[in-house]
Amino acid sequence: MDPSSPDAFPRQFARTRRFSLGVPRNFTVSPDGQRVLFTRTGGGRDPVGRLWLLADGEERLLADPTTLVGTGGEVPEEERLRRERARERSVGVVAYATDRTARLAVFALGGALWAVRTDGGEPFPVAAAGPVVDPRPSPDGRHIAYVTGRSLHVVGVAAPSRSTGADAVDRDRDRNRDWDWDRDRDRSRDRRLAVAEGPEISYGLPEYSAAESMGRLRGHWWAPDGERLLVARVDTTPVQRRWISDPVRPDRPPRAIRYPVAGTANADVTLWVYRLDGSRTEVVWDRTAYEYLVTAGWDAHGPLIGVQSRDQRTLRTLAVDPDTGATSVLDERTDPAWVELVPGTPVRTASGALVLAHDVAGTRHLAVGGDLVTPPDLQVRAVLGTEGERVYFTASDDPMQTHVWCHAPTTERARRPPAAGTGRPADSTTRPASGTIRPGDGTTRPGDGTVPLSSGPVRLSDRPGVHGAVVRGGTVVLHGVTPDGPYAEVRRADRTPQSTDSAAGAGEAHAATVLGCLAEAPLVIPRPRHLLLGKRQLRGALYLPSWYEPGAGPLPVLLDPYAGPGMQMAVAARGWPACVSQWFAEQGFAVLVADGRGTPGRGPAWEKEIHGDQLTPALEDQVDALHAAAEQVPDLDLTRVGIRGWSFGGFLAAAAVLLRPEVFHAAVAGAAPTDQRLYDTHWKERFLGHPAEEPEQYDRSSLTGRGHLLRRPLLLIHGLADDNVAPANMLRFSAELLAAGRPHTVLPLSGATHSPADDRVNENLLLFQRDFLRDALDMGAGPAAGARTV
Amino acid sequence: MDPSSPDAFPRQFARTRRFSLGVPRNFTVSPDGQRVLFTRTGGGRDPVGRLWLLADGEERLLADPTTLVGTGGEVPEEERLRRERARERSVGVVAYATDRTARLAVFALGGALWAVRTDGGEPFPVAAAGPVVDPRPSPDGRHIAYVTGRSLHVVGVAAPSRSTGADAVDRDRDRNRDWDWDRDRDRSRDRRLAVAEGPEISYGLPEYSAAESMGRLRGHWWAPDGERLLVARVDTTPVQRRWISDPVRPDRPPRAIRYPVAGTANADVTLWVYRLDGSRTEVVWDRTAYEYLVTAGWDAHGPLIGVQSRDQRTLRTLAVDPDTGATSVLDERTDPAWVELVPGTPVRTASGALVLAHDVAGTRHLAVGGDLVTPPDLQVRAVLGTEGERVYFTASDDPMQTHVWCHAPTTERARRPPAAGTGRPADSTTRPASGTIRPGDGTTRPGDGTVPLSSGPVRLSDRPGVHGAVVRGGTVVLHGVTPDGPYAEVRRADRTPQSTDSAAGAGEAHAATVLGCLAEAPLVIPRPRHLLLGKRQLRGALYLPSWYEPGAGPLPVLLDPYAGPGMQMAVAARGWPACVSQWFAEQGFAVLVADGRGTPGRGPAWEKEIHGDQLTPALEDQVDALHAAAEQVPDLDLTRVGIRGWSFGGFLAAAAVLLRPEVFHAAVAGAAPTDQRLYDTHWKERFLGHPAEEPEQYDRSSLTGRGHLLRRPLLLIHGLADDNVAPANMLRFSAELLAAGRPHTVLPLSGATHSPADDRVNENLLLFQRDFLRDALDMGAGPAAGARTV
Repeated sequence: MDPSSPDAFPRQFARTRRFSLGVPRNFTVSPDGQRVLFTRTGGGRDPVGRLWLLADGEERLLADPTTLVGTGGEVPEEERLRRERARERSVGVVAYATDRTARLAVFALGGALWAVRTDGGEPFPVAAAGPVVDPRPSPDGRHIAYVTGRSLHVVGVAAPSRSTGADAVDRDRDRNRDWDWDRDRDRSRDRRLAVAEGPEISYGLPEYSAAESMGRLRGHWWAPDGERLLVARVDTTPVQRRWISDPVRPDRPPRAIRYPVAGTANADVTLWVYRLDGSRTEVVWDRTAYEYLVTAGWDAHGPLIGVQSRDQRTLRTLAVDPDTGATSVLDERTDPAWVELVPGTPVRTASGALVLAHDVAGTRHLAVGGDLVTPPDLQVRAVLGTEGERVYFTASDDPMQTHVWCHAPTTERARRPPAAGTGRPADSTTRPASGTIRPGDGTTRPGDGTVPLSSGPVRLSDRPGVHGAVVRGGTVVLHGVTPDGPYAEVRRADRTPQSTDSAAGAGEAHAATVLGCLAEAPLVIPRPRHLLLGKRQLRGALYLPSWYEPGAGPLPVLLDPYAGPGMQMAVAARGWPACVSQWFAEQGFAVLVADGRGTPGRGPAWEKEIHGDQLTPALEDQVDALHAAAEQVPDLDLTRVGIRGWSFGGFLAAAAVLLRPEVFHAAVAGAAPTDQRLYDTHWKERFLGHPAEEPEQYDRSSLTGRGHLLRRPLLLIHGLADDNVAPANMLRFSAELLAAGRPHTVLPLSGATHSPADDRVNENLLLFQRDFLRDALDMGAGPAAGARTV
Repeated sequence: MDPSSPDAFPRQFARTRRFSLGVPRNFTVSPDGQRVLFTRTGGGRDPVGRLWLLADGEERLLADPTTLVGTGGEVPEEERLRRERARERSVGVVAYATDRTARLAVFALGGALWAVRTDGGEPFPVAAAGPVVDPRPSPDGRHIAYVTGRSLHVVGVAAPSRSTGADAVDRDRDRNRDWDWDRDRDRSRDRRLAVAEGPEISYGLPEYSAAESMGRLRGHWWAPDGERLLVARVDTTPVQRRWISDPVRPDRPPRAIRYPVAGTANADVTLWVYRLDGSRTEVVWDRTAYEYLVTAGWDAHGPLIGVQSRDQRTLRTLAVDPDTGATSVLDERTDPAWVELVPGTPVRTASGALVLAHDVAGTRHLAVGGDLVTPPDLQVRAVLGTEGERVYFTASDDPMQTHVWCHAPTTERARRPPAAGTGRPADSTTRPASGTIRPGDGTTRPGDGTVPLSSGPVRLSDRPGVHGAVVRGGTVVLHGVTPDGPYAEVRRADRTPQSTDSAAGAGEAHAATVLGCLAEAPLVIPRPRHLLLGKRQLRGALYLPSWYEPGAGPLPVLLDPYAGPGMQMAVAARGWPACVSQWFAEQGFAVLVADGRGTPGRGPAWEKEIHGDQLTPALEDQVDALHAAAEQVPDLDLTRVGIRGWSFGGFLAAAAVLLRPEVFHAAVAGAAPTDQRLYDTHWKERFLGHPAEEPEQYDRSSLTGRGHLLRRPLLLIHGLADDNVAPANMLRFSAELLAAGRPHTVLPLSGATHSPADDRVNENLLLFQRDFLRDALDMGAGPAAGARTV
């Protein structure tokens, strides 16, 4: 096969892990802005993540797992689950954490604990009590907190020691110049600080719903003083058991997981302040009224947490007194549907002003100290962090783009760049860690940010696309995906544009250091035509075959949606979805992607249109988008329309052929939640309420009981080890279809989770879907007519 | 839908449980020949089995579960497994056992123990210690042995008692006239005779391999004196665990079963003589050399058992001294491939002559007292039983038919009918209970059967077909399936034909009482054309559409084989396979069924042609059969050939498209053992040896590693609760196909075992297969062209 032909794309897509390999990510900026840490795998098809440092304009490899001895252990189960929740697709160094100064970085490799100093030296192992999950150094760099065996441990940081005896100790002393070795000798022992009292208890880890639905992927947070930690305790005893078996290996015992099914008990989550001497104080709030701990963190003003009611209609921000555990309400948000969790909130500025999102009159505003600091129709997406009184955040004025913005009080905006080493690093990832708050250094800057903003926020990203950033000490790491693909670059803050209307002119101003991106260029180059569709002005993208000449005859249509909460597909960015859509187009389809009601970026009202009914508006909008596109582009053949999707998109695809067979003629439904009652509490009750109180909302948002309606070819795909959307969804629906005598096709993915990891599986999944759709739409089984190399 | 049309057939097939409902079965004849007990469900679509009595030419209902109170319990797990092994498709009274005189019959209903007397009275419950499995009365009718909680219990038989107190006791005494009430009062208590010492131990039950592969469906046997029992003890501790999960119900804990995978440890099976006082003696044989207990029983000469070496090349018949447990070797059969277990052997005549099958020069002979008593080319299939010196057995001279025969010594043949109440009842079922020996009455008849046979055996069944019989006291219950369907009839032995050559004339002689058969007549009437095919003269049957006119154009071909060990498909009998084949024919196929090498009925050499390679000869013969049939019948379209099958037939179907794509163009593989290494010890090592010693035999008989060869449409169907052919077979093969990029279709059957029980599933399975095959062979998706009501 010609490796440059579109036929090689599915393999490339799989081997590059959706083009994620080789892309720099996980950025940390040192307080002085001089050093940028990040991870990147060895290449576009190398899944092994390494830790890198950018300093003085040069990249330096800090840690390479392929050269480290003793990293071959099994990834602990809790870490495996963390990665599943984080949709992590690489191995090696996939995450790390640093001290306040970003001089010490720690990470886990195959359960072993490693550390490396950014000012020189090889990575060195740190003896841990067992396989390590989520290690994090204290802000002062003296200790590392980590979880093993569901207990939280703290261990002192020893320096690298390849020899033994006094020499090594001496060298360690030299290295740790600010370390009072004698005083801390005892403290450097490994301590089991928070001890799990039983097999259903854990300390320092997020519960399932927190990681999967709240975006809180962690369970312990250092205090700025390095002497205390905020630690989540999770008791899953009340949670329903769900069995995950591997029928391919019938000799292996099935795993029992605790899965909080909608309408049933959640894990019992409490929060504790631990001191290094082992004493602890429970953080007290009304857990009956607010059973969800959605965020936690500890800044210079103390611990700050977000708690949410079971119905998710109330979100409270609480300040915690770390000595007594008492809490006080700083803010309360309410919403008749649900209060959307905005990643990065709540957070505080150096002066203590609370940063939140406020939904007002159809706009999600940034609110600082209670003041709305963003204009109408600029929809806040996430808060990246604060530095001094500045607040960095992402927001969309065009739903197809997400940009990085900076809010700064007018009094402070004259003084830029801000002094190094102060404030909290602004941070974001492509999957923002909602609710995670990095420990700040606790330094307040008196006088900063006390003047309310009068002028608007400043946009830092200039090119079209979906952007994020980490900002600290005058250094801005901008990263994201533009119409040309992924990028990451480092700028000095003084080169950033100064106001929204200067964005166009800023192009010439910034002299950025581009971080090396080793990702492969896709063999298929997306050629989207962005459309505004129908009466709702749905954002859409149409992909036609590169070889297609307008008017050359109608093309079968393939709808390729996600169209559910939390993710957009029609964006001005060359992410993997665009590549896949274009590849399907090269197979002879006109591929249409449209984001309907319920998708993010168009404000709170749009987002909540699907409250109580996740199906009707979403499906209606797909139909509207199709018909509107056909009006604009006459080449679409409405007699041959397929639809494919994964997860919510799979659900929508199955619903489409079931309920609108006059519109849709074939569907591929992957990992589809056909029965919303099987879904978890926090994700599903948010949209549909409690199943005992609102049964009809679950009925109308599920396919259960409608199998007899199927009249169109339907391919069901599901990972049999999916611990998120249970394979019971697929199997029950298939059984219902069988009982109703409705032919359908199943492709069970043995051992696969919600994000199948096997490259060959992922490669062939694309080919199988293509073949199924071609066959079902009578397009012939061979290569697409007229397909040629692009 | 016209209920008489072929389109209604799949539903009829499913609802009638393959036309098994309403057919009389499970016959017992009283020693005087005057009473015949049997079970029969309430009708052709009623799955509830009742117990019936034929006496004085009239049928009388003995027990109807629908009218009995207290039968609503759950069927115990052990009984569920027994039924799975027995391929039981009905409920209610599915089995029963009687005392020697057939005056007392006992059965279990939903775990409750019931008894009924055949000389009058209602069924009455017997208090048992727990849910009851396999209850059996002692020959004297005083006790019932049963298993509960994996322990063997014995309870005295109380008479029916609807009132309480002294009246009831008095009436009980009257009823039990031969019961010394005072002496036996203590003995009538429920006794836990053989107590399971732990969760992996059982007494009185067969282990998995015995029930699934040896045909031994039981684990306890009364002595003729009613004072002792032979009891199998099974310890599954050494056996590998295999998990059966129900991913449709992820909240249900998976079940662990003990499955002896080929090459791994079997259950540790020992045999014990228990006395009613609780004392016991172990039966001693060289269990290291002969680890399989294949049969057991206890006749007038003492216990008689069959034991087999792990490699199945040696089968020993042992006499047991019940006082000491010592055994002596009565016979040793050896075979370089394996010694085939012939149902009903070993057994003894009244004089103690050992009845066995001997394979000599290509014929499986009946051997009585070491003498071959059947002619060459009459292949013995099963021994039905002995009465006096007579031996009743089934055998085939034409492999497409199985008839009932009687061997009688010449001296005895003058004296017929034999005196009532002597000897052992002859017994058979359509799935003969190999190795089960009913306790005889222990009476020997001196002078009987001491003269060796000089003339040949006498055939009792006259019509074409596959027959079985139960004979006792001069009464013959003949039953089976003829070209017109199932039947059961009762004759007096003096009406049976006297020699093989009188069979034709016997039609006018027998004045039989026909037992009512309530089975539905199939909506599709098989119209097989029996063929001799190719150089091996393969027995085949060709089914053409009833609406097809020869020469009207070529018909796509569907091969519909089983073609594996132990089962024939091309027989002169209208069983369910013929109906299904004809139904597929009505859909527009020429359906060819052929039995190749390895199938039963053509003698030991034919049977063992597949030793060491279960695939090559079997597949070659299907290809030969196809080509030979096409030469004989010009209407077959060899450019459109499909193949379907279940279990071994499914394996063969998948192999066919994989390895012979130039011959086969589409396949449906149901419950296919694609990886023989996943199969159990006794069934698979028989054909392929030990997987560690003969790995290449497993390789060449498996599809593993060959998935990349697939070029044809393939539908894989598998029950996810199959505890025999693990669903791992299908899932691994599907995963291999996916990894190799080979498109295929899967239909997972949630909750279904190797014999799917759900009527709607079974109905739609036929329709799905038809639609898949039609589509794959480009026959159009609609009804078969020209199909019409037959």
